[in-house]
Amino acid sequence: MLPDLSDLSTFRTLLAQAPAPDQPALEAARDRNGQLTKPPGALGRLEDLAIWYAGWRGTGRPRVEAPQVIVFAGNHGVTAQGVSAFPPEVTVQMVANFQAGGAAINQLAQAAGATMTVHALDLDRPTVDFTTGPAMSEAELLDALRTGWTAVDPQADVLVVGEMGIGNTTPAAAICTALFGGDAGSWTGRGTGVDDAGLALKTDVVARGVALHAEAAGDGIEVLRRLGGREIAAMAGAMAAARVLRIPVVLDGFICCAAAACLQAVAQGALDHAVAGHQSAEGAHAALLGKLGKEPLLTLGLRLGEGSGGALALGVLKAAIACHSGMATFAEAGVSEGE
Amino acid sequence: MLPDLSDLSTFRTLLAQAPAPDQPALEAARDRNGQLTKPPGALGRLEDLAIWYAGWRGTGRPRVEAPQVIVFAGNHGVTAQGVSAFPPEVTVQMVANFQAGGAAINQLAQAAGATMTVHALDLDRPTVDFTTGPAMSEAELLDALRTGWTAVDPQADVLVVGEMGIGNTTPAAAICTALFGGDAGSWTGRGTGVDDAGLALKTDVVARGVALHAEAAGDGIEVLRRLGGREIAAMAGAMAAARVLRIPVVLDGFICCAAAACLQAVAQGALDHAVAGHQSAEGAHAALLGKLGKEPLLTLGLRLGEGSGGALALGVLKAAIACHSGMATFAEAGVSEGE
Repeated sequence: MLPDLSDLSTFRTLLAQAPAPDQPALEAARDRNGQLTKPPGALGRLEDLAIWYAGWRGTGRPRVEAPQVIVFAGNHGVTAQGVSAFPPEVTVQMVANFQAGGAAINQLAQAAGATMTVHALDLDRPTVDFTTGPAMSEAELLDALRTGWTAVDPQADVLVVGEMGIGNTTPAAAICTALFGGDAGSWTGRGTGVDDAGLALKTDVVARGVALHAEAAGDGIEVLRRLGGREIAAMAGAMAAARVLRIPVVLDGFICCAAAACLQAVAQGALDHAVAGHQSAEGAHAALLGKLGKEPLLTLGLRLGEGSGGALALGVLKAAIACHSGMATFAEAGVSEGE
Repeated sequence: MLPDLSDLSTFRTLLAQAPAPDQPALEAARDRNGQLTKPPGALGRLEDLAIWYAGWRGTGRPRVEAPQVIVFAGNHGVTAQGVSAFPPEVTVQMVANFQAGGAAINQLAQAAGATMTVHALDLDRPTVDFTTGPAMSEAELLDALRTGWTAVDPQADVLVVGEMGIGNTTPAAAICTALFGGDAGSWTGRGTGVDDAGLALKTDVVARGVALHAEAAGDGIEVLRRLGGREIAAMAGAMAAARVLRIPVVLDGFICCAAAACLQAVAQGALDHAVAGHQSAEGAHAALLGKLGKEPLLTLGLRLGEGSGGALALGVLKAAIACHSGMATFAEAGVSEGE
C-alpha cells in the first residue's frame, strides 16, 4: 500500500525510509544464475540485471508481466526566453498525439508490452519563468509530485517515466547545475536542436536562474520547486512511489535523470531501484549518469524524451529475466559443467 | 527463389552477384523518417536502422513479422589440443538443451518473437585438427555451406545465426589471423573461460594452424575450409543465402563474425545486409567488428554465442521499425514543426 502524500515533509520521510531489496531473493537469484546452462558470466550485464530485478521483486525467479510507461507533460514559463527550437503549443499537440497513439513512445511501449498512460499537468498554466522567481509554489510542487505518486500502478512490475514539455531541457540543466555545481554551460545542451546562438542564450538563462535561486542549491526538493517544472516533479513523484513500492525503474534520458537526481539529493539510496536505460545524445546526460552512478544499458544516440530510451531498454530487461527464469540448469539439462 | 548451391565456385559467383538494396524503398523510408513527429535525428541509430531495413525489404514502411534464428552445431578435432574449458560432449548435450527449450537462445528467440531451428552437423564426426591438416575436404565444406544455405526460410524478414561447438573460438581466431594478419595472440581470447596457461596454449595452436595453412591466407573459402568448422561454414552459408534473398541479418558475436568475415573476403558488399547486433566480451570481437566496418547496437558484456547477442538485438531492430512504420507524421498529428 502506498501512503498518502500529505505534505513535502512526508515525501522526504517516505523516501528516506523506503525499503531495501529483498536479501533472500537476491541470494536465491545469484544461486540460480550460477546453475544455468552457460559458462559463468557469459550473459554479461543480463545476469546482473536479472539478479538486481529479483531482489526488488522479492523472488529468485521473477517474471516481467506488467511493465508500465507513464508520460507526464508540462509547460514552462521559461520558454518566453526563446530557449527551444519548437513553439510551446507543441506540448499540447504532442499530448494529443500520445493519446491518439502516434508518437514514438506509443510504438516503443507497445513493442515492450507495456501499458501507457499520459498525464497533462495544467498545460494552460505554465510554470513561472525561473529567471524571475520560483517555477512553482510549494502547493503546486506538491500537486505535481502527487500526480506522479498516484499515477503508478501498484501492480506494475517495472516502471518507465517519460515527459513532454517544450523547453524542458532548460530546467533540467538548471537542476543539474544547482545540484552538482560546475558552470551552466557544462550542463546545457541543444535539446530538440537549437543552433549556436540558441545554445548561448539557453546557457545564460540557466546561469541566471541558478544564480537567482542560489540559496536552494543542493536541496533536492527546493531545487525541483524553484528550477523544475510540473512534469519533472511528477516524474520524481512517480519514481519515489516506485521506490516505496519496490517497483524497479528503468530511467530515460536527461530530463528523467534530472528528476531522479532531485530524489538522490533528498535521500541516499533513493535510486537503488533504478537502472539507466540509455545514454542520450543530449550533451550532459553522460555526466549526469556519472553523478547518479549508473551505467547505461543502451547508447544509441536517442535524444527524444517521452520515456523512449527507457521503454527501448525494457526489451533488454525482459530478455534478461526471460533467460534467468526460463533457462534450464546444468542438472536439469544433463549438461556437463566446465573445469 | 534461392538457386542451388551446386559447387564452391557457384557459391563465390552468387555472393559476388547478390542484389543491392532497393533504392526507391530507401528513398521512401528517408522521406518518411523526416516527416515523423519527433525532432530531426532524435531517434538516433533507430532511424538509420529503419531506413537500412526498409531498403533490404523493398518497402518504405516495412514491418518485422517473421524473424528467424538458426543455431548450427559442430565438433572440432582441434579440441584434442585442450583448447576449451568444457569437454567436447557438451556440444551434443547443448543441442539437446536447445531442442528442449532450456538454453539462453531459446528464451531470447521467444522474447524476440522469432522462430528457432537447430541443425547439428555430423557431431559424431569432428573436423580434422587443423594443426595437422585442413579441417574439411571441399565436399565437407560444400555440405556444411549447403546446410546453412537451405536452412534459411525465404519468408523470414530478418535472420540471426548462432552456433554451438566446444572449442570453436579457436578456429574463429585462426580464421581472423589468416584473413587479417597480425599475430595469433591478438585474435585469441578466453572463450568460455580458459585460464592463462590455456590461453597461451590456444594461441600457440592458432599460430601453428595458420602457419600450416599459410597458402590459404586471404581466400575466404579456403580459410573457412582449412581452419573453420562445420557450424561456422553453415553460418556463412546461411548468411550468404540471406544476402541473395535480401533478408537482413543481425550478426552475433566472435564466431558468427568470423564466418561473416570469410564472406567479406569472397566478395565486397557480401555483408551489406548485416548489422552488428552486439560487441562480445570475447577479446578480439571489437577488433573484428572494426575489420567488418560494423558498429555494434549493444555492448552488454555477453560472450555466450548461440546467436544470443544477435537475438537480443532483434528487440532494438523491431523497436526501430515499429517507430518508423507506426508513428504519425507532423501533418497527420497536427503537430507544429520546429524552426
